[in-house]
Amino acid sequence: MSAIQKNVEAASEAYSSSFTQGHLALPPAKKYLVLTCMDARIDPAQAFGISLGDAHVIRNAGASARDALRSIIISQQLLGTHEIVLVKHTGCGMLTFKNEDAHALVEKNLGSDAAAELKSRGLDFLPFSQLEDAVKADVQYLTDTKLVPDSVAISGWVYEVETGKTRRVG
Amino acid sequence: MSAIQKNVEAASEAYSSSFTQGHLALPPAKKYLVLTCMDARIDPAQAFGISLGDAHVIRNAGASARDALRSIIISQQLLGTHEIVLVKHTGCGMLTFKNEDAHALVEKNLGSDAAAELKSRGLDFLPFSQLEDAVKADVQYLTDTKLVPDSVAISGWVYEVETGKTRRVG
Repeated sequence: MSAIQKNVEAASEAYSSSFTQGHLALPPAKKYLVLTCMDARIDPAQAFGISLGDAHVIRNAGASARDALRSIIISQQLLGTHEIVLVKHTGCGMLTFKNEDAHALVEKNLGSDAAAELKSRGLDFLPFSQLEDAVKADVQYLTDTKLVPDSVAISGWVYEVETGKTRRVG
Repeated sequence: MSAIQKNVEAASEAYSSSFTQGHLALPPAKKYLVLTCMDARIDPAQAFGISLGDAHVIRNAGASARDALRSIIISQQLLGTHEIVLVKHTGCGMLTFKNEDAHALVEKNLGSDAAAELKSRGLDFLPFSQLEDAVKADVQYLTDTKLVPDSVAISGWVYEVETGKTRRVG
């Protein structure tokens, strides 16, 4: 067992020993979802004030709305959420590379079979070059798609990894 | 401003006022990633013992490895993680419907234009019918794809929303 796996077991032991939230319902109590980045420096529950059971939390590289669409539709159509809080952040890794860089890295590190698998999937890494513009573009994407109804409130935010602040930008 | 948006602003004020972690580096300090579900009843930091800055956290509907592949490749190839902790959970919404149910719901609630958009994207909602089998199948998927190198350690777990426990199943 790896050190990481041992850590999961130890955390489970500690967390479950004082756990009192086993009664919570499947649908989010406050009927909203937060979409943010997978970045290690973000703790959505603390930084965005999400109590256990209140909201769906979707996380992926860059807080991409396009990448999250499957989860967003399920959240709304099957579990009744009707508000989206979209948060990208300063210092995001997605600001540091281009699609072709990532494709080249996969070919160099994982070989030509991996590069071929990547190509056959038509995978877009969805990097972006300007943070606030990317937040606004994703809010617009969610506003435009027919798969998110107009009744859903959508707001766009930037979390500052340097200060712990979250500020609205769209 | 909605109540949810006001809550984000209030949380930001409180969190940033005592924030001391502005120095953390972009790459996860413990070089691993956690993939889990967007479910509102899961707090990965607490339940799985993730300190701020230690690990990427990817979340989507059902903790789908297939859906997370873009983020996983970025996490490994660009930010140096080399271990995956995959956690699905009891009472998951993905156990409660079939692909055709979700497609029918979109057509009923959002109309034929939305259904057509869904179809044109070839969107698979990726539900599953048995929890532990789904964990094992996703571990196998990550083991099989050439886009995740053999050097990456992968473990599969079930989080129990009723007890707060996390147990290994694959």
